Amino acid sequence: MGEFELIERYFKRAARQADVGIGDDCAIWSPSPGHQLAISADMLVEGRHFLSTVNPRDLGHKALAVNLSDLAACGATPRAFLLSLSLPRVDEDWLSGFSEGLFALADAQGCELIGGDTTQGPLNVSITVMGEVPAHQAILRSGAQAGDDVYVSGHLGDARLALEVFRKTVSLPQSVFELARARMERPEPRTALGVSLRGVATAMADISDGFLGDLGHILKASRVGAAIDVAAMQRLMLTRDAWACPQDLLQRCVLSGGDDYELVFTAHPDHQQRVLALSEACGTPVTRIGRITADPHLLLLSEDGGVLPNTFTSFDHFA
Amino acid sequence: MGEFELIERYFKRAARQADVGIGDDCAIWSPSPGHQLAISADMLVEGRHFLSTVNPRDLGHKALAVNLSDLAACGATPRAFLLSLSLPRVDEDWLSGFSEGLFALADAQGCELIGGDTTQGPLNVSITVMGEVPAHQAILRSGAQAGDDVYVSGHLGDARLALEVFRKTVSLPQSVFELARARMERPEPRTALGVSLRGVATAMADISDGFLGDLGHILKASRVGAAIDVAAMQRLMLTRDAWACPQDLLQRCVLSGGDDYELVFTAHPDHQQRVLALSEACGTPVTRIGRITADPHLLLLSEDGGVLPNTFTSFDHFA
Repeated sequence: MGEFELIERYFKRAARQADVGIGDDCAIWSPSPGHQLAISADMLVEGRHFLSTVNPRDLGHKALAVNLSDLAACGATPRAFLLSLSLPRVDEDWLSGFSEGLFALADAQGCELIGGDTTQGPLNVSITVMGEVPAHQAILRSGAQAGDDVYVSGHLGDARLALEVFRKTVSLPQSVFELARARMERPEPRTALGVSLRGVATAMADISDGFLGDLGHILKASRVGAAIDVAAMQRLMLTRDAWACPQDLLQRCVLSGGDDYELVFTAHPDHQQRVLALSEACGTPVTRIGRITADPHLLLLSEDGGVLPNTFTSFDHFA
Repeated sequence: MGEFELIERYFKRAARQADVGIGDDCAIWSPSPGHQLAISADMLVEGRHFLSTVNPRDLGHKALAVNLSDLAACGATPRAFLLSLSLPRVDEDWLSGFSEGLFALADAQGCELIGGDTTQGPLNVSITVMGEVPAHQAILRSGAQAGDDVYVSGHLGDARLALEVFRKTVSLPQSVFELARARMERPEPRTALGVSLRGVATAMADISDGFLGDLGHILKASRVGAAIDVAAMQRLMLTRDAWACPQDLLQRCVLSGGDDYELVFTAHPDHQQRVLALSEACGTPVTRIGRITADPHLLLLSEDGGVLPNTFTSFDHFA
């Protein structure tokens, strides 16, 4: 099967929103009137972002999910994406599974594949996603104010826990592992929550490199600090009650694990009830885990009110 | 050097056109009022699209140039791009050269880097480029009409000739090789010509996989055929007069060589003078090399009026 047949068979579908979709030199598309484009790109490399044994359906899902998570973090509604794919060879089973996982999520989120590239080479999945926000309503990292509450969506740390099992640094009961593994391999972008927080959240980021690092981006961009309740954070691990997770591993996974694809955001205390109502409406749990401070430091507060040393490091591809 | 320092040092520059550039979860940007977005993505893989010995400055140039060529093929004005880069390691000399080559072309074309991703892995350069066209003025592949003239910009076949030297299937005098190599490693996207052909060209595509294949995309999308003057095509090779190129190699390079990044387009015969005037104004040579036919076949006409068998195959990553 050649390159064009591969595209035709697995990736080309009739353009719906786009004026011109796959099959010309460019796709032609526009955001809705009165809206701005939100654009982000994420590249997934075999052996680095996913294991060679991953189910291709899960990989298709995750490759788009991590991109949609960036849109959610700006409060943008998903609209379209481009897929550049480097493949070692044409493997029809793999392509079939990958495209199914990809399109299942794309369809569920109303995000249309409008272009891309296919080439031979080491496995690499590179997606650029486009969404839209009403003009000047994107939620940026730079808007946090001293006194704002700090919230996290969903659960943290389980994806990292699963990775540690693959790395054989820890072993888990099978049922616990399956739960953690699903969090690692099939993250759910928090699109509905992110979009609904427009006008409510003062700053937002997605948690991909680890909570402390991604919160750090907000603090730096907003020139503020934060006091974080570590006990509240620890309760965010989904698998926490299902096995006796050592305390240091639990803290490391939750605070700096990475691959969570949850949202960390800030909002004025007057908006607490509104935040909880939106969480309820979206079916996405939200937990208040701290407060923004004028003093530009990040404090980790333990249950007894003491301050934990911050020795946690975020994921860095070249560190 | 870590990932964020790498981005800061080599790739982050103050946002100019974009509302939000590098440094948030998404870039925020919009096309001008009354315009549509034209979007395209190209992925370059080491050993496949470029040799490991390539000058990083040239690679930075080419990675963006091949994307800009897709915008030119739609008559779109370049505006912004995203860069996803997988690197085996942090090599500051390489990064410095690569980013210089990339930004020199980006600046020359008014195309701003607004986002992307950086990761560790086999060398892979994945760019998504965005341009704009006045609403419904994009030049598509589907508009060619029987009777239209077929034109090609610039020169064809020299990039392939250089590749054959690297493959050691041919040897060239050094000066000829340098000329061909520059065509392979530093293609010039035909942006000015592409944009100026709005309202004149009925269909257009860029020549990346080889002339016959890319013309074939126009014929298929427009449901027409073409009669092509092979003698006129052969004169398009820049290095042709500088050495005794065997006839079969010359034809193969020109008709199906690939990596040319020239434009093939069609226009009504009434527009011949206009096409030549635009070519002159842009400083880009344009040659009429055939005519669109209602009969949906591609005929290669030799100088004596005979028909050559079309045994040329375009580049296909998985063929």
